[in-house]
Amino acid sequence: MTNGLRIAILGAGGLGRGMALMLSKRKGFTLVAMADSEGFAYNPAGLSLEALNPNGQIQQLHLIPEFGVKTPTAIADLMVNHGDAIDAVFMALPNLPVDFYANTIQFIAENTAFQGVMVDALKRTKAVELLLPLNDTLAENNILYITGCGATPGFLTTIAAVAAQSFVELEHIDIHFGVGVANWEQYRATIREDFLHLEGFDAERVAAMSDQEIEEELEKRNGLIELVNMEHADDIILELAGICDRSKITVGGLVDTRNAKKPTSTTVTVKGITAQGESTIHKFVVGDATTMVDNVCGPACGFMAKGVELHNYGIVGLRTSAEIMPRFSAEGLVLAASQNMIQPQAVSV
Amino acid sequence: MTNGLRIAILGAGGLGRGMALMLSKRKGFTLVAMADSEGFAYNPAGLSLEALNPNGQIQQLHLIPEFGVKTPTAIADLMVNHGDAIDAVFMALPNLPVDFYANTIQFIAENTAFQGVMVDALKRTKAVELLLPLNDTLAENNILYITGCGATPGFLTTIAAVAAQSFVELEHIDIHFGVGVANWEQYRATIREDFLHLEGFDAERVAAMSDQEIEEELEKRNGLIELVNMEHADDIILELAGICDRSKITVGGLVDTRNAKKPTSTTVTVKGITAQGESTIHKFVVGDATTMVDNVCGPACGFMAKGVELHNYGIVGLRTSAEIMPRFSAEGLVLAASQNMIQPQAVSV
Repeated sequence: MTNGLRIAILGAGGLGRGMALMLSKRKGFTLVAMADSEGFAYNPAGLSLEALNPNGQIQQLHLIPEFGVKTPTAIADLMVNHGDAIDAVFMALPNLPVDFYANTIQFIAENTAFQGVMVDALKRTKAVELLLPLNDTLAENNILYITGCGATPGFLTTIAAVAAQSFVELEHIDIHFGVGVANWEQYRATIREDFLHLEGFDAERVAAMSDQEIEEELEKRNGLIELVNMEHADDIILELAGICDRSKITVGGLVDTRNAKKPTSTTVTVKGITAQGESTIHKFVVGDATTMVDNVCGPACGFMAKGVELHNYGIVGLRTSAEIMPRFSAEGLVLAASQNMIQPQAVSV
Repeated sequence: MTNGLRIAILGAGGLGRGMALMLSKRKGFTLVAMADSEGFAYNPAGLSLEALNPNGQIQQLHLIPEFGVKTPTAIADLMVNHGDAIDAVFMALPNLPVDFYANTIQFIAENTAFQGVMVDALKRTKAVELLLPLNDTLAENNILYITGCGATPGFLTTIAAVAAQSFVELEHIDIHFGVGVANWEQYRATIREDFLHLEGFDAERVAAMSDQEIEEELEKRNGLIELVNMEHADDIILELAGICDRSKITVGGLVDTRNAKKPTSTTVTVKGITAQGESTIHKFVVGDATTMVDNVCGPACGFMAKGVELHNYGIVGLRTSAEIMPRFSAEGLVLAASQNMIQPQAVSV
């Protein structure tokens, strides 16, 4: 019997392994499984960082002694065989093609005994849109899926959702991030996804590019990728939460693929109108020493734990990270109890 | 039949009337009742700002034509007679003596048909501590009470709770506020409560002071109240949420009682240690044009609406604002479903 929530990480790249590190440093989480395209490792007593990185070297999952399984259908095999012994899943898979997440989630919901919480760190609006129709399938299978739980959308979106509470109307929400990675090869999938936002690139073209070709494109840019008006799911997530129309939300950033030091501080700027009709700005500035792992995996941890708490009260289906926060609007809400619609049981906490 | 959540405001001072304004500008809320020490006004179709402030003048509640009731036991009378037609309550009462809230809440839970959500904007640690023992009474009476939903604790505390998610350990959380009020008499109770934090003052002494004496104390200070190491409930609220020990949390501020312009910008500084062991700081700066009403009543609105959403799933009892947020730790959590402890029903959303 393990202590703490039993976590599976799907994906073993930079984010997946970052989450393994984060889980080891937060209280109440036990990493029991991890899967990649070649296999998975499962240990109900917990997979240690030492097992994942013996002697500081990255170990392929299927090669982990005793707990590794080689299989080309690793995610399916892991979730079919052990889904009923997993409390929460962090989706750290690459999302090319863009419907890969939706298909994977539908498979898990319909074909495994998993009845827990899933969170992702998806970035593109389109990717989140493709998940929305899965609400009923997830709910019917007792799964709570929270989308947009990384850095942006996720950490910075939920800061914006809280910041919005001072205002009666939002004028503009801008997220501008600085990211520095010492070596882009540690975050191949993430950097490839950033390329989708550059002029002249799309999913098909990026998927067809070799690592060498990515490297050449980076060389042309001195290792810097400047991203403007990105299609980032912060927009749909804040819109769905009733905060403002997606047209008022902009996301951009500067990624340095050659230096761990951020080329610029990450900021969230929330401009709105007060009850007295004044326009003003709240600003959040992220500490430069935080990495992508800190700002993606830390918040995703928080949403996994929150998700389990909510799931225990029967909250299932698809939610966004901003919908977990205090609500901006009460539109459409009624209190079931005082309308005599339901008679909730007294639950002691 | 009203549209939107049916809201009662207990208290008709600066915060209570500020909430009436805020509710009129957010979607999905209908102010149906307001009470002060002399009476209450109740209109199931909604109390308008015009009814509260005819010709721009503050109207005493019991004098409101048709809907006003004069009674020295206004809160009790309102909640006993109309509690079953109220979805959420904003507690905007003065808290002198410090157990007034606890006694009022216990009365409402045990003696009225109210089964909804209550939120407060309490400030002192001691006041929040006195509420904690009410959890079972509230739960047994189907009430969800969320404490610390104002500016600090509340808005700034929950910003800190989200900001903490990047870190594996918190070193220091500092909240420093600037408040400007053009005329302290609009916020008598709030300013009096600030005096409790000054050297040489306590609840008894402040309660015994006349407005004239308060005015003289303000005169000595040029209208400025500088507050250092305040006993503010941000500390207990962040500690209860598992974020860090209360000793690592400091709250201070500068209040100008003669100018609406803030004497300093309000900031939240969150210093923590990353997964890689680096120490760094996130900083949130609040827009200077926001007032106490914006930063107290806006977030409290958000918590009332969120509270109703959670109450509809059977979440009742006492919670803090930070406990509504993503969790920092998963300690003590298990997923009931996958442990076969409960079999939650599929709930479509």
